[in-house]
Amino acid sequence: MIGEFALIRRFFTRPQHATGPEVAMGIGDDCALLQLAPGMQWAVSTDMLVEGLHFFADINPHALGHKALAVNLSDLAACGARPVGFTLALALPAADEAWLGAFSRGLLALADAHACALVGGDTTRGPLNICITVFGEVPVGAALLRSGARPGDDIYVSGTLGDAHLGLQALQGHLQLPDAVLAHCRARLERPTPRIALGIALRGIASAAADVSDGLLGDLGHILERSNVGATVDTRLATELLGCRSVWAGRASAGAPMPESVLQSVLSGGDDYELVFTANPSERTAVQGAAHQAWVPVTRIGQIEAAPGLRVLGQDGAPLHSRFASFDHFAST
Amino acid sequence: MIGEFALIRRFFTRPQHATGPEVAMGIGDDCALLQLAPGMQWAVSTDMLVEGLHFFADINPHALGHKALAVNLSDLAACGARPVGFTLALALPAADEAWLGAFSRGLLALADAHACALVGGDTTRGPLNICITVFGEVPVGAALLRSGARPGDDIYVSGTLGDAHLGLQALQGHLQLPDAVLAHCRARLERPTPRIALGIALRGIASAAADVSDGLLGDLGHILERSNVGATVDTRLATELLGCRSVWAGRASAGAPMPESVLQSVLSGGDDYELVFTANPSERTAVQGAAHQAWVPVTRIGQIEAAPGLRVLGQDGAPLHSRFASFDHFAST
Repeated sequence: MIGEFALIRRFFTRPQHATGPEVAMGIGDDCALLQLAPGMQWAVSTDMLVEGLHFFADINPHALGHKALAVNLSDLAACGARPVGFTLALALPAADEAWLGAFSRGLLALADAHACALVGGDTTRGPLNICITVFGEVPVGAALLRSGARPGDDIYVSGTLGDAHLGLQALQGHLQLPDAVLAHCRARLERPTPRIALGIALRGIASAAADVSDGLLGDLGHILERSNVGATVDTRLATELLGCRSVWAGRASAGAPMPESVLQSVLSGGDDYELVFTANPSERTAVQGAAHQAWVPVTRIGQIEAAPGLRVLGQDGAPLHSRFASFDHFAST
Repeated sequence: MIGEFALIRRFFTRPQHATGPEVAMGIGDDCALLQLAPGMQWAVSTDMLVEGLHFFADINPHALGHKALAVNLSDLAACGARPVGFTLALALPAADEAWLGAFSRGLLALADAHACALVGGDTTRGPLNICITVFGEVPVGAALLRSGARPGDDIYVSGTLGDAHLGLQALQGHLQLPDAVLAHCRARLERPTPRIALGIALRGIASAAADVSDGLLGDLGHILERSNVGATVDTRLATELLGCRSVWAGRASAGAPMPESVLQSVLSGGDDYELVFTANPSERTAVQGAAHQAWVPVTRIGQIEAAPGLRVLGQDGAPLHSRFASFDHFAST
């Protein structure tokens, strides 16, 4: 069987030219050495992915490599940071070379797309577990925080929501989807697109931001809590937010409201990795300009208010009484 | 059961004053924000600990919290870096509050001792897995690297070696140790002391360094490989290197050579988290001064040579023919 050091060299070592000037030293020593230009800050985030919870045992390892880095890059996007590098810690039941080859190709393809260098790591035997810590740079004071939302601010979401959750439900057998729709939803679930360009474009425009990993209402809730404000989300503004409206278009006539089950995927489904953010209404043109620049649509879905709490208006304009819980890995269910 | 966010707040959130000026923002947003003074570099390392491989299922969670951070701080020590902060990703089978309380106290006590702030993290359900990424600072160009050893340099080891491996063997039932010796060896195995002060004191003095995590010969081997040199280690110089000589003192008369099995623990036993380093012979006084300043003994055990390969002289001065393999998580055994 391949050894630990040979494994790292073979699957995870990149040519030196693949790293930027911020990486003074990458893999091969006890530590990586990183430095930024004056006036820059590091944005750092870590995520751990576990089989059975974040992905199925039979996931394509190429997709898993992509997703493991994507969910971390998404945190950088939420701060408006530019990716620079990451560390990878990997527990594997066995050193399966075919699996490792596909996993590392999926991982490094996304890393290369964002010029994000693998600077260090650790491999060990154990139940499959992937932990990535990612480092991005952002000018001092320019990071998008969860704490900056103010009453009167608009609330926006990028891209579409719910696809990943619908894909998950279909893969779990709770839902039937046409093949083409399933393929779309599955791609959204397994190969999410971190909104790096949008996060950077929103510097100086958005007042607060978070990524939608656990569900829109839950992640917006983090912004409200950190900003000490409340909000109203109007789901009538959110009907654009489902990527695969064909899921319910077949069942409802044109113009009919979204079925509750689909609405739940939009509002509370996790794993979309879009951005939810706020901006002063005076920035509406600038927000659309940033969206245009980043090649991703953004939709205004509500407003920040001084009154605490999160109010959700249903498809008929009346308050939704059902509570859409966000995903919590340790909540009793 | 306690939820994920409550878990983080209750067990892992520290008062703001516990973080240094390098931590512009810690836990609570999508990313932590970190910045250093001009002229400083980040040293970054990551380690993943898995039950059954790095620790036993019945380990005291306080000790586990200590060890999880200690093995990471040890990598900073090997680079001569000062600890600043760390992220913690934790997969847990269940949110056991008593276990978490003890784990977090063990972890944060060591963190506080080194003024190293918990700046971010992730918790999830899954087979027990602890992944820490640690950030230290070092002046640009001052980091101790594995690649700096030159022919003629002395080779040193800090503290004592072998205790952790003897403790492991005793806990596994392969070895009988007197209670007091077992307690010492077990403490060395479960609560290693990262040699932070020594690493910092060796800046500008040591030519190369690594920490002894996988075994002396293996970790010295990394220095030889990266420096493109060879070495001779004379085990007659290393007889001071076993902390608990009482293990074999009872079996051998005074002055007798170390038994082969004990020598193997000294040369190849992992988990000691001492430093192995090299320095020009002109630095002998400076090396001892650094050791004195850091309150840890260092022992000279051999010399770097131009000829590739690692030669080990046995207790009789003749080359040791037995090969002491270093620990490799994926090597076939």
